[in-house]
Amino acid sequence: MADKMDYASSGVDIDLEGSAVASLVSSLSKSVRPTGTPGAPVDLPGGFGGLIEFGDHLLALATDGVGSKLQIAAALNEWSGVGIDCMAMNVNDLLCVGAEPIAFVDYVAVPKPDPEVHAALGASLAEACRLARVTMAGGETASLPGIVTELDLSGTALGYLKKGNAITGENLTAGDVMIGLPSSGIHSNGYSLVRRIIEHAGLQYTDPAPFSSQSPGREIVRFNDDNQAITIGEIFLNPTRIYCDPVVDLINQSQLEECSFSINNLKAICHITGGGLSNLLRLHETLGWEITNPLTVHPEFSWLGDLGAVETWEMYRTFNMGCGMIIAVSEQHAGEILGWLQDRMSGVDIIGKVVDTGRRVTHKPLGIEYSHY
Amino acid sequence: MADKMDYASSGVDIDLEGSAVASLVSSLSKSVRPTGTPGAPVDLPGGFGGLIEFGDHLLALATDGVGSKLQIAAALNEWSGVGIDCMAMNVNDLLCVGAEPIAFVDYVAVPKPDPEVHAALGASLAEACRLARVTMAGGETASLPGIVTELDLSGTALGYLKKGNAITGENLTAGDVMIGLPSSGIHSNGYSLVRRIIEHAGLQYTDPAPFSSQSPGREIVRFNDDNQAITIGEIFLNPTRIYCDPVVDLINQSQLEECSFSINNLKAICHITGGGLSNLLRLHETLGWEITNPLTVHPEFSWLGDLGAVETWEMYRTFNMGCGMIIAVSEQHAGEILGWLQDRMSGVDIIGKVVDTGRRVTHKPLGIEYSHY
Repeated sequence: MADKMDYASSGVDIDLEGSAVASLVSSLSKSVRPTGTPGAPVDLPGGFGGLIEFGDHLLALATDGVGSKLQIAAALNEWSGVGIDCMAMNVNDLLCVGAEPIAFVDYVAVPKPDPEVHAALGASLAEACRLARVTMAGGETASLPGIVTELDLSGTALGYLKKGNAITGENLTAGDVMIGLPSSGIHSNGYSLVRRIIEHAGLQYTDPAPFSSQSPGREIVRFNDDNQAITIGEIFLNPTRIYCDPVVDLINQSQLEECSFSINNLKAICHITGGGLSNLLRLHETLGWEITNPLTVHPEFSWLGDLGAVETWEMYRTFNMGCGMIIAVSEQHAGEILGWLQDRMSGVDIIGKVVDTGRRVTHKPLGIEYSHY
Repeated sequence: MADKMDYASSGVDIDLEGSAVASLVSSLSKSVRPTGTPGAPVDLPGGFGGLIEFGDHLLALATDGVGSKLQIAAALNEWSGVGIDCMAMNVNDLLCVGAEPIAFVDYVAVPKPDPEVHAALGASLAEACRLARVTMAGGETASLPGIVTELDLSGTALGYLKKGNAITGENLTAGDVMIGLPSSGIHSNGYSLVRRIIEHAGLQYTDPAPFSSQSPGREIVRFNDDNQAITIGEIFLNPTRIYCDPVVDLINQSQLEECSFSINNLKAICHITGGGLSNLLRLHETLGWEITNPLTVHPEFSWLGDLGAVETWEMYRTFNMGCGMIIAVSEQHAGEILGWLQDRMSGVDIIGKVVDTGRRVTHKPLGIEYSHY
């Protein structure tokens, strides 16, 4: 039997990271910008941070990087998707408060600049801007041979929303319906574990995938010849889905007078990132989440779980497992909203509901649950 | 005689960096956001990028990192200033278009999180927020043991200004007066060369400085005991000056009805970064800059230049040499504006003027000039 693997053994200590971040945050004092002036901090219910006042609007900043997925990109010298990954990690976070992303800046740190790599990154970021419908508002490339051994890519996205229109989870009630949006693959989380599993199994990213990559609601962006078998690397580097289309449109639609549902019927939006299903716990202090009809698990997750003998519980708190975003909506409008989303994205479905039986996420078919993150 | 050193020999190839960035930028297509809507890009005269529309305002993003100054911080495990450096590099750039910084996010990449280092970073960023008067609107810490060998710190600042109030250099005319604002030291540029000079000389950052650190308009922030001699490391790690106070106040003052000068009298603002004096060339297509009365050169610059046998011409296009920001103002209001600034910051002075004898920067007392960057 293979050694059982988990995220901590893959070299990332989540608890240590948490305590480091807590140290940083606890040092930050209150803002000097007074309430009612541009830049004043806004504390939303549900603990969403990063919002500031700006007249009749709120502005939101999100900052994040691509992380160790970049090491697979570097191994294959294949950069066509990582700009999209970087954009997605940031704009998908903005969507969760109901903000429309409008601008983006990137930060690249390299041991030595390589014009070819940068051209590929530029093309990837341009495509990402198109998908997220944002303006590229700048960027920085730093040569740091003493600090980085490989390319690091991160970015910051700016979004806005009308005051009073923030989506926070505050109005969630038992019975609200969970709509799942399919992911495109592993997205940009869990790659330390992915890399360890592949390494431990003695496989190469250039090996043909020993499974079919077919899965509802997603396609693999090929970077090898179409007539070659799809490789593990192509599946693993599939760009993270950017949910601006359809989520920004859904938010805007809900504010139209002729729309049968309103923005108040969009109760909460959750970007499924490093904590997997446990991300849902952030959205409400007391309510729980019951998944009865999960989206299809992409085949790479099942294959990786088997290959690394990773516990199912661990898989679902590390990876998105096929569902990259969850929107909780009012029960009475769930059908309309579902239909609206299905017209714009294939693979969207109702996956479960909000329950008042305690603050936990339960995956009913697998019998697993999460009560902390 | 010591080997002559320059920036390229210190391991950073500026031309290669430029061509890598050009590759990236050329791939970026036009924004999908139409003129007149939030997020639409704004092209200012003078080539300032990074601005977007937002109703009656423009929003500006700046992103930058601390760079190889971090390697000295790491060598001394002294992080109290680098948050201020990171903030300064970003907000000082925003000031150059006349934007008031309002929010900031940081991105930290580490091989392994260290709560003590993060606590020090947090304290430094909190102090930076106070100095720049911005709200800390989020941040990300990434553990990337396969990508970074030491801590990398970067950030993004958000600023705003009223439409029509952008400061671009467009209205510069011969005779405009250059006002210099003193730097606090090396700031956050040129550290690859600094490190190479020190290494080549066989010195340690913990060595007492073999020169007096006294210089008008700046003080060294001590992190060793006050009764020990000041070290080279303390001088080199002196935090970058944040110019929000007095520059934001100057911009706001100029918009008051009772103010004798107007925002139109503030013609251009230049943050002196990696290109040294050559940064001024970005501000106008045809006009030149004549420095006749430079601010005092901080002693560390003279010492480093001698120690590394660096050409004077090279020094002034790598370092700020004592002057971290230059504001070009109308001749008829130069006296008032100078007085206003001197009341708020010591060491400010008139350093020269704008001339119509060709697009070059001339340092008259030293007989050096720059016509490209």
